[in-house]
Amino acid sequence: MKHYKLAFLGFGNVGQALARLLIRKQEEIKDKYAITFSAAAIATGSRGRAIDPDGIDLNAALKLLDGGQPLDSLSTVPAPQDNLAFLKACGADVLFENTPVSYTDGQPALDHLMTALQLGMHAFTANKGPVVHGFRQLKALAEEKGKKFFFESTVMDGAPVFGLFRDTLPAAQVNAIHGVLNSTTNLILTRMEDGETFDQAVAYAQSIGIAETDPGGDIDGWDAAVKISALITVLMDTPFTPDRVDRRGIREITPEQIAAAQADGKRWKLVCSAVKEDGKILASVAPKQVTSRSLMYTIDGTTSIVTIRSDVLGDLSLVETDPGPHTTAYGLLADFLNAARAD
Amino acid sequence: MKHYKLAFLGFGNVGQALARLLIRKQEEIKDKYAITFSAAAIATGSRGRAIDPDGIDLNAALKLLDGGQPLDSLSTVPAPQDNLAFLKACGADVLFENTPVSYTDGQPALDHLMTALQLGMHAFTANKGPVVHGFRQLKALAEEKGKKFFFESTVMDGAPVFGLFRDTLPAAQVNAIHGVLNSTTNLILTRMEDGETFDQAVAYAQSIGIAETDPGGDIDGWDAAVKISALITVLMDTPFTPDRVDRRGIREITPEQIAAAQADGKRWKLVCSAVKEDGKILASVAPKQVTSRSLMYTIDGTTSIVTIRSDVLGDLSLVETDPGPHTTAYGLLADFLNAARAD
Repeated sequence: MKHYKLAFLGFGNVGQALARLLIRKQEEIKDKYAITFSAAAIATGSRGRAIDPDGIDLNAALKLLDGGQPLDSLSTVPAPQDNLAFLKACGADVLFENTPVSYTDGQPALDHLMTALQLGMHAFTANKGPVVHGFRQLKALAEEKGKKFFFESTVMDGAPVFGLFRDTLPAAQVNAIHGVLNSTTNLILTRMEDGETFDQAVAYAQSIGIAETDPGGDIDGWDAAVKISALITVLMDTPFTPDRVDRRGIREITPEQIAAAQADGKRWKLVCSAVKEDGKILASVAPKQVTSRSLMYTIDGTTSIVTIRSDVLGDLSLVETDPGPHTTAYGLLADFLNAARAD
Repeated sequence: MKHYKLAFLGFGNVGQALARLLIRKQEEIKDKYAITFSAAAIATGSRGRAIDPDGIDLNAALKLLDGGQPLDSLSTVPAPQDNLAFLKACGADVLFENTPVSYTDGQPALDHLMTALQLGMHAFTANKGPVVHGFRQLKALAEEKGKKFFFESTVMDGAPVFGLFRDTLPAAQVNAIHGVLNSTTNLILTRMEDGETFDQAVAYAQSIGIAETDPGGDIDGWDAAVKISALITVLMDTPFTPDRVDRRGIREITPEQIAAAQADGKRWKLVCSAVKEDGKILASVAPKQVTSRSLMYTIDGTTSIVTIRSDVLGDLSLVETDPGPHTTAYGLLADFLNAARAD
């Protein structure tokens, strides 16, 4: 039986979904993998923080947050406000990093993950920033420390696009990647097909918590650009940042264009592409019309797809239907269990 | 550096494609995984057999077969005609089993794999028969011997449907499986949409080597039934044989039905299904009409798809486009490398 003390940095929708999943799967994980765990530390953005070396009751933490209460009352030792000091004080073996994303430099998530690895923790994140801005350095440090840096949930939520190539497809050279990777824009385009204006569709996406108050990161293609960059960085083993992606968002797509495509048996999709030719990688994010013979045609709402072309399998596609915080949470759980199984 | 001596039982299209892939990837595998290999033994169905403890030149073996010559001249020691005696004599560490499939009892492949594991070899197969008729016994023997029994290529060629759940999706409970898993029938239905009669489409599938002389195994849904049984057996961890599948083939689908579906914006697909309810599993293979909003609608020709519903990810789909002997061969190579990496 192996025991792990878990730390959570960032405890919003995804962190809380992960806590619920850990509670639900606790017995199964113990029986099937001989792995047990306790929550050593939780740090939220604005709802307090707690450290308890004997284990925080996750149900109690969720209940406090549901009731609008901060977590500080669960702390049995001082819990530093500074995140790096918090990590040093918490004594955990595993970090789940879920702080907000930065497209430009990956901070402060990158520092959190580096510090956790330095302290000898496994480090898992749903945050794309550190993958595009620090993959090689994080991977090297993890290898040096004999720990894992995994990040399955950063692209396509819990769908195992990274694990697939890390664990099950050895000796595969990836030549091209295509996909619909941003849920918000796909939901907006789907709703515009049903007659909504762009602004109405954006407002709807905001109302259900999919789009942010400033929806530019999705609509202008930044999120998609960061995701295709993360896939290039890891699956093509070539560092690649989002500013190198030829990027166009969906702001200019009109209801008339949507209707014209539909009349022609086509649909608009915000398509991410990366192609390797003569050792050079070209990447783009742009609205494209796809026909009903394309897998992308069937991708509705928040569903996402990636098609990966390799020298050994031709085109292999992965589709995740109706993802949500619970599937992102599962990606983090899978990262934890895959690391722990290999310990 | 780890070295493996490989044995090939069955050396037709798939075995030869595997040999070519091993030759092409030899240096990459050595550099990336510190794994080397040699071909200790090859047994064909009707083109002779050879054992050479110092390593058979795979290029020479392929050249002999291309020239219509038997392999016997490559043997430096006596190569028994009986397959089990052959395995005992060959001194290999790894068996690639690619003899013809038996839907009813999985033999003789099952005996080949059991013998190889008994002898301390890793055992890999592209043969569905032993999976549906002997999975638990093969898995138990492999565990007892500290070896691997892998079979990635038995369903969807090299697409990692088994590896996905074995290696990257821990603690996932599979509740339902749906898919288009038989290439021959899907090719026939696709060609009937283009105006061919059933018989013309069957003749075409036979002419390109996809359908057998007696195409009943595909057309009557047996191959699909074996594949859904293999998925149930492994992913739902419940032994399941093809005779328990409610099975209908595509023999009765008329050109008129095909045309009517097309006029209605639909397509006929031979759909495999398995659903677990209250601990009971119901499985079927039957022709069904799908709409353009279904992923299955886009599955043309020999392409295949599986959608797996689990308690943690909802629906996750895997699509393999235009497979062939080279992708089946890759599944076997992946099995070998995944086992060797864990040694």
